[in-house]
Amino acid sequence: MRATYMYGAGDVRVIDVPDPIIKEPTDAIVRVVRACVCGSDLHPYHSMPVTPGGSSIGHEFVGVVEDTGAEVSSVKAGDFVIAPFAWSDGTCDFCREGLQTSCRHGGFWNSGEVGGGQAEAVRVPLADGTLVAVPVAEDSPLVPSLLTLSDVYGTGYHAAIKAHVNPRTSVTVVGDGAVGLLAVLAARQLGAEQIVLMGRHAARTDLGREFGASDVVAERGEEGITRVRELTGGDGTHVVLEAVGHMPAYEQAVGVVRAGGVISRVGVPQYDDAPVGFPSLFGPNITLTGGPAPARAYIETLLPGVLDGSVNPGRVFDLELPLADIADAYRAMDNRESLKVLIRP
Amino acid sequence: MRATYMYGAGDVRVIDVPDPIIKEPTDAIVRVVRACVCGSDLHPYHSMPVTPGGSSIGHEFVGVVEDTGAEVSSVKAGDFVIAPFAWSDGTCDFCREGLQTSCRHGGFWNSGEVGGGQAEAVRVPLADGTLVAVPVAEDSPLVPSLLTLSDVYGTGYHAAIKAHVNPRTSVTVVGDGAVGLLAVLAARQLGAEQIVLMGRHAARTDLGREFGASDVVAERGEEGITRVRELTGGDGTHVVLEAVGHMPAYEQAVGVVRAGGVISRVGVPQYDDAPVGFPSLFGPNITLTGGPAPARAYIETLLPGVLDGSVNPGRVFDLELPLADIADAYRAMDNRESLKVLIRP
Repeated sequence: MRATYMYGAGDVRVIDVPDPIIKEPTDAIVRVVRACVCGSDLHPYHSMPVTPGGSSIGHEFVGVVEDTGAEVSSVKAGDFVIAPFAWSDGTCDFCREGLQTSCRHGGFWNSGEVGGGQAEAVRVPLADGTLVAVPVAEDSPLVPSLLTLSDVYGTGYHAAIKAHVNPRTSVTVVGDGAVGLLAVLAARQLGAEQIVLMGRHAARTDLGREFGASDVVAERGEEGITRVRELTGGDGTHVVLEAVGHMPAYEQAVGVVRAGGVISRVGVPQYDDAPVGFPSLFGPNITLTGGPAPARAYIETLLPGVLDGSVNPGRVFDLELPLADIADAYRAMDNRESLKVLIRP
Repeated sequence: MRATYMYGAGDVRVIDVPDPIIKEPTDAIVRVVRACVCGSDLHPYHSMPVTPGGSSIGHEFVGVVEDTGAEVSSVKAGDFVIAPFAWSDGTCDFCREGLQTSCRHGGFWNSGEVGGGQAEAVRVPLADGTLVAVPVAEDSPLVPSLLTLSDVYGTGYHAAIKAHVNPRTSVTVVGDGAVGLLAVLAARQLGAEQIVLMGRHAARTDLGREFGASDVVAERGEEGITRVRELTGGDGTHVVLEAVGHMPAYEQAVGVVRAGGVISRVGVPQYDDAPVGFPSLFGPNITLTGGPAPARAYIETLLPGVLDGSVNPGRVFDLELPLADIADAYRAMDNRESLKVLIRP
């Protein structure tokens, strides 16, 4: 089959690899119907050292089950399924607590003997815990929105849930990528009314307004902080959802959060150390939370709105390309011509 | 009157200053019955640059109201009162939310024209919002425990509240100072059963056991982390209450917190930057919270247990000295001969 490998910064190729096969009785093989490129895939796209053997990539996909191991009972061949971006047993204490990204027996795509989602097919370990079958046809117009449940919608929702967004909280979202826009959508669903979206790409922030942003701030740095404070009587917002991962976004978050408030990060941090001392977090009693979203935990919650059409998170996709052209998808997202690219194997 | 001033690291003196007087109609003058030295007073005691004019110090006191301004209605001359370590109006949105340390009109002792608690008397601004009258005599044996409500008991409780300690959470407390020990007491009051106290001074950790610690770990660094993990099946605890403020304590907290858990800091951080990236906080979805305790917010909650004798947080005091000898109190706490010193003006 064909699968995407990255060989270093800027070097993405589609190569032939052996078809995945059932290795454990708890495995399923899923033929990929749609995959996509994640903002977090752009981090190695910028920084991966040259790696002669390459590394498979991709962690968001929906597809159709082709085969299952003897112990798999919750999905069967022919089922349309959503695969969250971590695989998990669904039964350990962490999974029962809704933290499937810390599952005692789980893991992430593209590690060990598990391939990536930007491919024609994937071996899914612990299929019963990982996959969610959805009663739709693979040519359903809902497929793009269902695909967002594998990562970006769940990630935006995780940011808002960890920050306890509710009708009484004002919210700033830092970043107008797909996760930022879906953090806006999630905050709105959880009842927030004032939602300030910080982003400078009008097409994206326009979609953010449709998802529920009440205000858009295009300025960055000190100017951006001043603007958000002006919009909030000088105080900043109770909650900041940080959906970028670079240090300036962290600093922005610290600059616009209200005393006693919460900064919830879902952009994968590209730094180790950050200010957390008296002036930044401690003095004003700011809480810092977030992490990789247990996307699996949120699928049941978010699926009904997708299925009944009341939300359409799939609108974050503004380009669709065949798998063979995935290098163009990375380029288009990297130079910000495209918000998020749908990949058709 | 006599008041304590610090003139630089290690240089604490009791000097004559003018008696405090009513300046605003919302002021009260409180004659100090008991004050004390705080672990956080030791930070400037170690690092304060030489300051010829000195700086008044002390932020924990109980006393008797001597005079009140025309607009003060909740306390009157003769009342025994507890003064929390920040003064606040009690009416602004932050105060109503229980974050009196961020009061829109409040402040901290020893700033502007407001003196410190290690003195014979103090001008208390915004007396209605700040002071809590308690029906006890100034020679009551409850006085030491009441004094802990001005800071250290409320601070330990704040750590536990911000971390949502409950009967299902396992807890590690980093630090066996007065705040650490009272964080143990608070965690126990909130229902925690496994409470691991990290500290190496047997007299203190013995008191910690009486306050509710189920385990004591004297080791530090990697060894301490290993020991706590052994006590928790390898996972660490759901909650870590960090009551020190130095970087090794932060690293200890990161090392012993369970995935998905909370680190709640109440030790005033003596660092600005700290690890918050993927390996430390983000990857395992750790929440970092805490800050200066709004001690005022917790007095009503914690007072009944003190008054009925069911808790005795005043046991953290192991030495009492007259105000004239306060330099000895600093020395005794600094060289760890004393856990916490009660000061009698």
